[in-house]
Amino acid sequence: MTRYKIIVGYDGSAYAGWQIQPGHPTVQAALQDALLRLTSETVIAHGSGRTDQGVHARQQVVHVDFERNDNLVPLLQKGLNALLPADIRIYRIRRVGAHFDARRSAIRKEYRYFIWNAAVVPPFLRLYRTQVRDRLDVAAMSKAAKLLVGKHDFAAFTANPNRVVETTVRTLSGLTVKRRGEEIVISATADGFLYKMVRSLAGFLIRVGEGAVPPSEARAILHSKERTARVPTAPPQGLFLWQVKYPRH
Amino acid sequence: MTRYKIIVGYDGSAYAGWQIQPGHPTVQAALQDALLRLTSETVIAHGSGRTDQGVHARQQVVHVDFERNDNLVPLLQKGLNALLPADIRIYRIRRVGAHFDARRSAIRKEYRYFIWNAAVVPPFLRLYRTQVRDRLDVAAMSKAAKLLVGKHDFAAFTANPNRVVETTVRTLSGLTVKRRGEEIVISATADGFLYKMVRSLAGFLIRVGEGAVPPSEARAILHSKERTARVPTAPPQGLFLWQVKYPRH
Repeated sequence: MTRYKIIVGYDGSAYAGWQIQPGHPTVQAALQDALLRLTSETVIAHGSGRTDQGVHARQQVVHVDFERNDNLVPLLQKGLNALLPADIRIYRIRRVGAHFDARRSAIRKEYRYFIWNAAVVPPFLRLYRTQVRDRLDVAAMSKAAKLLVGKHDFAAFTANPNRVVETTVRTLSGLTVKRRGEEIVISATADGFLYKMVRSLAGFLIRVGEGAVPPSEARAILHSKERTARVPTAPPQGLFLWQVKYPRH
Repeated sequence: MTRYKIIVGYDGSAYAGWQIQPGHPTVQAALQDALLRLTSETVIAHGSGRTDQGVHARQQVVHVDFERNDNLVPLLQKGLNALLPADIRIYRIRRVGAHFDARRSAIRKEYRYFIWNAAVVPPFLRLYRTQVRDRLDVAAMSKAAKLLVGKHDFAAFTANPNRVVETTVRTLSGLTVKRRGEEIVISATADGFLYKMVRSLAGFLIRVGEGAVPPSEARAILHSKERTARVPTAPPQGLFLWQVKYPRH
């Protein structure tokens, strides 16, 4: 058995998310199909995490095991992008040891949420930005974001707190909000994220930017551990899985 | 009669170009349909120029005449983007005098041609970049570009030199080639462009960048006034109508 690490990027617009769902196009299914066609082996593409319907990945990390021990890198490098649709692209493939696990070995993940804060979204960005027409107060958003950084129970910032997870405590090592002209970028970095956590953080920060919720409410919402209307789930198309970090060895 | 100037941007991927063609989706048809639905007037949307199938416009300028003399700006501003598909967006609308003509009044147009010079095109750019895998020599391309700037007969750089045009002489006031990482941007500015002229210039410059044609050939090709294989037509998806300039008054 040989394990491979694959770096893949995708435009999530046409997919029901990363994870295989019978009857729906998914990125995992497209990748596994291409791998089967190239190698005649049925494999599972293990992603660093799921992305939801319509969410994009600038950089998703995947591991795959093949029975064959000959080096498949040249074959995969040559063949995968030729077989895959242009909205899924393979950037790099390399052999890794069996200790490497795309999900479990990850030490840090960054998501970025892109807002287009103007009356008109340029047509070229329509699939990659969430539009907010009224001007958002980025200073207030940054203030709220700072209150959320750290090790906290993020039960109030997940879409389904009753989902079976061992714990809803996560360490959010970074949460920043930056404006570049009409674009606002929210960057969230953590050891791991709960279901729809980034879209919940973005939804809350947008409410703060609109002036609907004061920044200081961030702490109270965290402490409540309860999902309320102050934390809407922002739409998927502005969200990108940006990068996944692993230990050096 | 009142004339309006409309600034529109579009993703050309799904369209058979700007100009109406029965049986094919075009940007002009989509815009005229939306104008008819809003105002109940059948109008012609006069563009600053045509763009071909698959070519984009960051900024196309259009003029339209309405019989009604009441100010339609609020209605159009509110309604047009709601009726148009998201790949066509209206940026600005204002009333102008009857002297203004989107095509004839234009004093300068800029097109930009975007090349992705790498083995893999990020999925988010797949509709907006032309891929060239092998590394292009941008210094050679710039050298060739400089030789093309000025007032010349560009018959060798149009797809169909037999097309009925008064003259194939144009003043190319700027032609630059710049690399930003994996992206190469060709900017072409002129008083007007011949049919497929920018894609012909881009096709030639790519051949120069590949080392297939020496930069100095630019002059000889110009003087030949004949279209040859040294001037291929580059694909449409990398091309954007970037801006159209008019006199101050």
